Amino acid sequence: MTSIAVVGSGVSGLHLGLFLQQHDVPVTLYSDKTAEQIASGRLLNTVAHHHHTLERERELGVHHWDASEYGYVCHQHAVVGTPEPMRWRGDFQHPSSIIDYRLYLPRLLQDYEERGGDVVIGPIDTEMIERISSDHDLVVVAAGRGMGAMFAPLPDKCPYDKPQRRLSAGIYHGVRYSEPKGVGVHMSLGHGEMLELPITSREGFATALLFENIPGGDLEVLADVSYDEDPRAHDELVLRKLEQHYPMCFERVDAASFRLQGPDDLLQGALTPVVRQDYVRLESGTFALAMGDAHCVVDPVNGQGANSASYSAWVIGRAILDDLAVDEQFCRRVARDRQAFVHGVSDWTNMILNPEPHVVGLLMAMAENKAVCDAYTQNFNHPDRQWDTVATPERTAAFIARYGAGQPAVAA
Amino acid sequence: MTSIAVVGSGVSGLHLGLFLQQHDVPVTLYSDKTAEQIASGRLLNTVAHHHHTLERERELGVHHWDASEYGYVCHQHAVVGTPEPMRWRGDFQHPSSIIDYRLYLPRLLQDYEERGGDVVIGPIDTEMIERISSDHDLVVVAAGRGMGAMFAPLPDKCPYDKPQRRLSAGIYHGVRYSEPKGVGVHMSLGHGEMLELPITSREGFATALLFENIPGGDLEVLADVSYDEDPRAHDELVLRKLEQHYPMCFERVDAASFRLQGPDDLLQGALTPVVRQDYVRLESGTFALAMGDAHCVVDPVNGQGANSASYSAWVIGRAILDDLAVDEQFCRRVARDRQAFVHGVSDWTNMILNPEPHVVGLLMAMAENKAVCDAYTQNFNHPDRQWDTVATPERTAAFIARYGAGQPAVAA
Repeated sequence: MTSIAVVGSGVSGLHLGLFLQQHDVPVTLYSDKTAEQIASGRLLNTVAHHHHTLERERELGVHHWDASEYGYVCHQHAVVGTPEPMRWRGDFQHPSSIIDYRLYLPRLLQDYEERGGDVVIGPIDTEMIERISSDHDLVVVAAGRGMGAMFAPLPDKCPYDKPQRRLSAGIYHGVRYSEPKGVGVHMSLGHGEMLELPITSREGFATALLFENIPGGDLEVLADVSYDEDPRAHDELVLRKLEQHYPMCFERVDAASFRLQGPDDLLQGALTPVVRQDYVRLESGTFALAMGDAHCVVDPVNGQGANSASYSAWVIGRAILDDLAVDEQFCRRVARDRQAFVHGVSDWTNMILNPEPHVVGLLMAMAENKAVCDAYTQNFNHPDRQWDTVATPERTAAFIARYGAGQPAVAA
Repeated sequence: MTSIAVVGSGVSGLHLGLFLQQHDVPVTLYSDKTAEQIASGRLLNTVAHHHHTLERERELGVHHWDASEYGYVCHQHAVVGTPEPMRWRGDFQHPSSIIDYRLYLPRLLQDYEERGGDVVIGPIDTEMIERISSDHDLVVVAAGRGMGAMFAPLPDKCPYDKPQRRLSAGIYHGVRYSEPKGVGVHMSLGHGEMLELPITSREGFATALLFENIPGGDLEVLADVSYDEDPRAHDELVLRKLEQHYPMCFERVDAASFRLQGPDDLLQGALTPVVRQDYVRLESGTFALAMGDAHCVVDPVNGQGANSASYSAWVIGRAILDDLAVDEQFCRRVARDRQAFVHGVSDWTNMILNPEPHVVGLLMAMAENKAVCDAYTQNFNHPDRQWDTVATPERTAAFIARYGAGQPAVAA
């Protein structure tokens, strides 16, 4: 029986660890943080789990937040900067869900431990990975962006050499949910996007605002302003920017109660998207397989990173069950099996960051035709299809023609 | 709606043509022979259709030869040249079937035409493919090995620069079927293999003998001897060679009635295995996708060519239905989706032609353990898994360990 090391306790590491545990494959999970440290730490992200990810949670027996109660059912699109402000809605066939990872990850780590899982807590670095590799038949590296350097970037999948957005993600009180409950996908032309996310936080239902700010635009300041120096000034700046750039969110804000939940509930930064090679052979002869952010880092504008990471965990888990070895042929198989999905997430997201005219045209078509918007929304579960949709003008035209027989989109 | 040209009326061309027709995709089938010419011509091959191929026939409504009546259920292995002759059996979960392609192809061409399908009869060459490409959105080239030259070989998938076997395939009277009815997989160490195939021929149930002769061995003469010059001498030579090299077939031969069915029922020759690139862009800008023998030629020793070709037709057909365009992205998707299966057929078959010691060891394990042999036999439906089994000594050992808990194999 093969012994697997899973390095990293993010969503993909936990999903793979729980999967292997469920199928009686010996596995050791290496984490640089305890469940308590994760739970009490800074906001990690504001990512949605779409239906296919929730289905994997159900299969693992870790879907602790019933999507029919905690989830949301649509994308509420809103655009300003066009001659007239625009708004339209796209519906999911099944709800998606957003749980603060400071609730989610510790709970799943606890599940894994309660089911008898091995966890080793300690620093994670390349030297440590080489060292543990002699105790295992395969090392799956899912220790976030920090360990990506083990795996060389694929130049033809990396169009950007610097961040395309400067980010501010925070959890706020004082934003009333849309009806039906959905993720607000707001655009302020020339300045960026803002995702308004109905999140289940440590304090219960709240709203995460993820500002995707174009460098040099009017909103970039949100990635730099210090909350700790003057919390109230920060919150007032956010409120003012919301009013100006994202009025269709602001209309549901109660200015009196609007505030960041707390100093740990803000994450500012930027990232450069990258897709890396799938695997390397370690000095011990054991193969190390990249997963999650160690394999592929995407801008969060499409909210796909966690879903891609979890999908990858599943591909790897199933391949471990099915295949006869965890050798290079196994690694190539994993690479092939996840390529369309993981590269699809990356190619699609990179296109959205600097959309070609036909992708802008797709947004316009979505505004005019709900069936087109529903199809695009539903395909957040199928990023491979999403890339197949936006890759060329001809493909986008064919997508609109295929789904465009429906009725005009209705504002929420 | 996309218009597809399918060039070639072999099994993959017909399966794809029927599939697209069934799904209302405009398709034109180009054939260099009429149904009558195929029906009255020389033996084309002696290939088995395994369960997955029969399942596609059922879905197309062209499974005219009920596998429970016309099919067979096992592989009867027999080896001479070892210290003691060996025999053992591997069972399929579902029957496979062998129908003479001079019955099979005309009948499916007739189905396609009766359902209103467009067929253009005429010579097929590269000039013709360029010419018709301007009338179609995609050209699928399935015109046999002759048109392979359009697609460059993939050097790392082509270990051989010349044929590894010299072939004689013929349909014979006078061979009683094994019980249970199966394909005889005979080996004469150092001289080659012989497949004894329960075929449905133009004259009804008969037996095809496919001699896979190692160049320089005692059986090579079978690929050269002329039937037309002296039919009786040919048949007697075959009988003598059977007695000497394949006694576990010979024991079911009635020497008095043993004879080739007729002069058109013999095919002698040799082929060099090759895997080619998946597609090219034609001068018109339209893409040409290789399918079947235009894409991948394998030695018939594993009887996988037709199944691989039909699988490829299905991948292409489904991709045409699902995808939004038939552009290069589409072609890359087809390449990725069929790679494990089609390359698996090729890699596995190339390994069997010159087996490494661990593959010989696998045969010995099959002889000793029926569960191992059944698993290998069943995997004739999963050539990707078969390659995963034989690629390295470690993988073969893991396969034997996984399935080796069963009882010893029993001779038929």
